[in-house]
Amino acid sequence: MKFRRSERLIDMTAYLLEHPRQLVPLTYFAEKYGSAKSSISEDLGIIKETFEQRGIGILQTVPGAAGGVKFYVQVSEKKARAVIEELCIIMATPDRLLPGGYLFMNDIIGNPAIVQEVGRLLASAFARKNIEAVMTVATKGIPIAYAVANQLNVPVVIVRRDSKVTEGSTVSINYVSGSSKRIQTMVLSKRSLAEGSKVLIVDDFMKAGGTVNGMINMLEEFNAELAGIAVLVESENIEERLVDEYLSLVRLSDVDVKERKITVSEGNYFSYKE
Amino acid sequence: MKFRRSERLIDMTAYLLEHPRQLVPLTYFAEKYGSAKSSISEDLGIIKETFEQRGIGILQTVPGAAGGVKFYVQVSEKKARAVIEELCIIMATPDRLLPGGYLFMNDIIGNPAIVQEVGRLLASAFARKNIEAVMTVATKGIPIAYAVANQLNVPVVIVRRDSKVTEGSTVSINYVSGSSKRIQTMVLSKRSLAEGSKVLIVDDFMKAGGTVNGMINMLEEFNAELAGIAVLVESENIEERLVDEYLSLVRLSDVDVKERKITVSEGNYFSYKE
Repeated sequence: MKFRRSERLIDMTAYLLEHPRQLVPLTYFAEKYGSAKSSISEDLGIIKETFEQRGIGILQTVPGAAGGVKFYVQVSEKKARAVIEELCIIMATPDRLLPGGYLFMNDIIGNPAIVQEVGRLLASAFARKNIEAVMTVATKGIPIAYAVANQLNVPVVIVRRDSKVTEGSTVSINYVSGSSKRIQTMVLSKRSLAEGSKVLIVDDFMKAGGTVNGMINMLEEFNAELAGIAVLVESENIEERLVDEYLSLVRLSDVDVKERKITVSEGNYFSYKE
Repeated sequence: MKFRRSERLIDMTAYLLEHPRQLVPLTYFAEKYGSAKSSISEDLGIIKETFEQRGIGILQTVPGAAGGVKFYVQVSEKKARAVIEELCIIMATPDRLLPGGYLFMNDIIGNPAIVQEVGRLLASAFARKNIEAVMTVATKGIPIAYAVANQLNVPVVIVRRDSKVTEGSTVSINYVSGSSKRIQTMVLSKRSLAEGSKVLIVDDFMKAGGTVNGMINMLEEFNAELAGIAVLVESENIEERLVDEYLSLVRLSDVDVKERKITVSEGNYFSYKE
């Protein structure tokens, strides 16, 4: 059964979006559609151009016998500005203020459309880097970690507060939480992370960075390598930040409980370079 | 700036896949591309046909002034069989056997590509139903719940074992775990779930169904309505199942610790009708 170009373009677009950072040989498409490789090449040229123009991502062509195409998510700057601006507006709504100056975030993190956008943004910054796993800590970081990992096509490693029987043997470490200076424990299943992996740490909220720092210590236990840190929200006004380089989408500058005012601004997304 | 048909098809495909179960007016596309509505209609006809033929999903046309198109994920039966068969093979690998007959599942649940496939499958069964939220319990159910919620375009509600300060006021219930018959507690943030919501419960693993049953009790506290139950794995050989109707992808029949043999078969996905 032969496919028209229009049908090929639709199906290839769907396939590439679902298989980011995966090398797809031209022969895969040629056989799937019963088309000549030259036609597939032309199709990919059109998709590549449209993906770039519409801020969907980058289609990299790998030449040679072992070649093919690879799709990388790459949110355009315009789109990124719009998403971050919207995040700032949502974050600043005063009704998320909880007793003690804490912020209710479930409406943001519970919204899959927002989480997907956040994932695409964070992944854009690391798509071309050598990342082999995404690490986060249970519970609130998990949705964002998966949204990033979806786009990077790498496994998610979830560090827990407590050990569970279904985790098998675990490695446990103690760390000092940044703000409360209390000793806390985190646990990672031994089989969850391969030795020597290059790991991107992802979390929803970073204050002093104690938890992220704990995860960095955990990486050492696995001889794994820190390849980057990406958070949705970073909190300003921190006496001593435990973590140096990180990417953030939103910066929380001030929470005024009395006036019920939350002050946020864009994070370092546009100045982040590595 | 005008767009050629091929560019429109690519961009519309990407847009529709990223906005499932959302009514997109034809004028949205017409204005985006500077095209006549009649051209957009033709484009959508081609996309609709290709989506159905390739087992990507269904494009529903809603006529009239307030009309437009809506994309529903709908995995083809052939694709579903392939995915479930692969899941069964992965599940049966003996090295996931842990002391006490527990199964290590992190490699499956930590793989975003598998989780996305599972999400598309489970969502296919509920895409045309009136679902307003997906509920799960921390931690292992979260990735699957988001993968389903992505496709259904509804918020995720996460029930926890313990209350946290960032959850605001919570409702707490006691329930009896199905297998160990112990009293346990689950907690849900009051603001996480709107009263009267129609809720799909999603989890990774169901034995007797105690946890799922706990979530059903929690729904009652919010005057919410159970709209369905979907799990990745159900365990057979249960003396007394606490839950009647549910959808499962894989059925775990037997775990022989001595022989190191895990026996699995396909769940009730293909016979599930509601």
